[in-house]
Amino acid sequence: NLSSYSLIIFSSALKNLIVRNKLKAFYFLMIFTSSGAGYHSESKAKEYKHVCKRACQRAVDRLRAGGLALEAVTSALMELEDSPFTNAGTGSNLNLSGEIECDASIMDGKSLNYGAVGALSGIKNPVLVARRLLSETQKGKLSAGRIPPCFLVGKGAEQWAISHGIPACPTEKMTTSEYQTTQNPLSASDPVGDILVAGEENNSACLDTVGVVVVDREGNVAAAVSSGGLAMKHPGRVGQAAHYGCGCWAENARDVSLYSTAVSTSGSGEHLIRTMLARECSTAMQAENAHQALLEAMQNKFISSPFLAGEDCVLGGVIVLRCCTCGEAQRSEDIQALLVEFLWSHTTESMCVGYMSAQDSKARTHISRLPPGAVAGQSLAIEGGVCRLGTVSD
Amino acid sequence: NLSSYSLIIFSSALKNLIVRNKLKAFYFLMIFTSSGAGYHSESKAKEYKHVCKRACQRAVDRLRAGGLALEAVTSALMELEDSPFTNAGTGSNLNLSGEIECDASIMDGKSLNYGAVGALSGIKNPVLVARRLLSETQKGKLSAGRIPPCFLVGKGAEQWAISHGIPACPTEKMTTSEYQTTQNPLSASDPVGDILVAGEENNSACLDTVGVVVVDREGNVAAAVSSGGLAMKHPGRVGQAAHYGCGCWAENARDVSLYSTAVSTSGSGEHLIRTMLARECSTAMQAENAHQALLEAMQNKFISSPFLAGEDCVLGGVIVLRCCTCGEAQRSEDIQALLVEFLWSHTTESMCVGYMSAQDSKARTHISRLPPGAVAGQSLAIEGGVCRLGTVSD
Repeated sequence: NLSSYSLIIFSSALKNLIVRNKLKAFYFLMIFTSSGAGYHSESKAKEYKHVCKRACQRAVDRLRAGGLALEAVTSALMELEDSPFTNAGTGSNLNLSGEIECDASIMDGKSLNYGAVGALSGIKNPVLVARRLLSETQKGKLSAGRIPPCFLVGKGAEQWAISHGIPACPTEKMTTSEYQTTQNPLSASDPVGDILVAGEENNSACLDTVGVVVVDREGNVAAAVSSGGLAMKHPGRVGQAAHYGCGCWAENARDVSLYSTAVSTSGSGEHLIRTMLARECSTAMQAENAHQALLEAMQNKFISSPFLAGEDCVLGGVIVLRCCTCGEAQRSEDIQALLVEFLWSHTTESMCVGYMSAQDSKARTHISRLPPGAVAGQSLAIEGGVCRLGTVSD
Repeated sequence: NLSSYSLIIFSSALKNLIVRNKLKAFYFLMIFTSSGAGYHSESKAKEYKHVCKRACQRAVDRLRAGGLALEAVTSALMELEDSPFTNAGTGSNLNLSGEIECDASIMDGKSLNYGAVGALSGIKNPVLVARRLLSETQKGKLSAGRIPPCFLVGKGAEQWAISHGIPACPTEKMTTSEYQTTQNPLSASDPVGDILVAGEENNSACLDTVGVVVVDREGNVAAAVSSGGLAMKHPGRVGQAAHYGCGCWAENARDVSLYSTAVSTSGSGEHLIRTMLARECSTAMQAENAHQALLEAMQNKFISSPFLAGEDCVLGGVIVLRCCTCGEAQRSEDIQALLVEFLWSHTTESMCVGYMSAQDSKARTHISRLPPGAVAGQSLAIEGGVCRLGTVSD
């Protein structure tokens, strides 16, 4: 009874998303995840769904205005970072020194370029710095033949951001009073803190990091992730959100790879690093049956990973998107149809996801939960859907 | 004529290393790499060989005293870091602010544990901090159920090191006058600098980072890597040496993996990150023919990698060690023989390697060079050897 599995096929999507007009079609999916007793309680659920919807809308607006996957993923992630309810950007967890230090990364499936920042303070939208690092990489070498950096940390990352026109933001403006009281389990004056100290698994309540995956009208995929890290982490600690192959992955179809894939992860950073979960899920997604492949990847490459031998509570979640133009999706010459499969899976108590395609008038949101009796960190939930998108080639 | 290939079989090793007494046998290999016109010139070659020998000796001393792979790899790497001639620890490249910021990581093939530090200043031996992070990971969770960090950067990493008993070291003590003059190409008063600015590939002269791979008497592998990073890098820039799967990899044989493998990389950090070269080489090493597998990995997963499309100069080097107790190596019940294959490959102009087994009275060193006419960053050299080690089970 180790894993629960449910497959949701959105039949309305299947029916409606082949459009025979000039509309450019694109698809978009996003997430944030959490665990811990009741953290995605009914009262919080509304807030999470709301911010998910707003982020979806931001991305779709961008795509409708002609933006590609990389731009859409950045817009959506900025919206999520700006929410005080998520553990990313504004509202991030505080470290042991009471400061905010953020990790973020972004990957472009088309160019396979990558940018990341770790332990970054004083910048409102960490993903914007990661995005800018990625852009600078594409411009070629610096003076004296130096290769542009793809990963910057700490004070140096902050300085780089400011020198590239990204404004500084005082930490006070990013700290929300709500997070300060709910997330500092070692605070003696905080009764919630005492409870959290008593049950070690409950500290995982603070994993509400955010991730986004997108496919655009050209079939390009992109992924991004942002995190304030563990509450009470040591200053300078960098988690999976700033780690290549661990926090996000995006790879367009090419040669041996039939499918374009985009993955974003959330959860216990060290576990996601050591299992390199984003890349493992992307690799798994080349198998024929996406659901079965993700189920096996989460089971064998995460929960039961030899890299986490001895760990009895492995908390994490992934959103996965894969698409291809192959097979029956190719209906006619003038319409190129894209078959998109999107899945999410988690070992945390719950995970909130939102998703939207360009044809949708609004985003759908869902809070996925482990089935009753399932143990977080040892069981998993997996859900997903499929849709076909039609685009007209100009 | 893209790649040159040579296989060196050390027949003396083959002949001598099956020992039928109580001697515990172990094997050890190490490296540092470089490119750039004449940087491994004859005058420098002597220095490099010398420090390689000392590092080999340090590791073997540790192994002879009963130490395991993880301890040996740390000892050898500390010796390399302490040399003012290598771009790691003392003598590291200076960043744009004229400061030293070091990256280092270490991986234990037995536990698959990992520790890394990035952009670390003020600590003489960065690998010691990475090693300590790895050890702390093995002790289990911190208070309030927090997972111990495996990767720390910047000021926070420095503070963590000091609070764990690793002494601070003033930057001045780690800066060598020799490096200051040879490595700052943008210095107007430095004629060498002007030349370096003119030819962009020449900046790769400053890639002399260090790595070590070891197998111990129990057949455990370990790998470590340390780097001062690119000269004139932006403060906060983190290279492959602090990146999981990119700077080093070590994985004992288990289940599906017939071979234990250990890999350490050096070269252009961003290229080694985006190709995840250490892990790719480790994966490749499960193929039957190690030399062919490494040749193909260097060609297809590095020089011609889709992750580096558009890059015309891909500089890097790897040392690889793989071993198994399989096949004809198992001669009798009481003697367990270990078949060890060790290889190095590089696209840089040259690479200095040293290696030694416990039965050797002194280390062997070698400066491998690209064949005449081969273009650095586009061609590769590959060499290696094989030996059998006998151990007596107690």
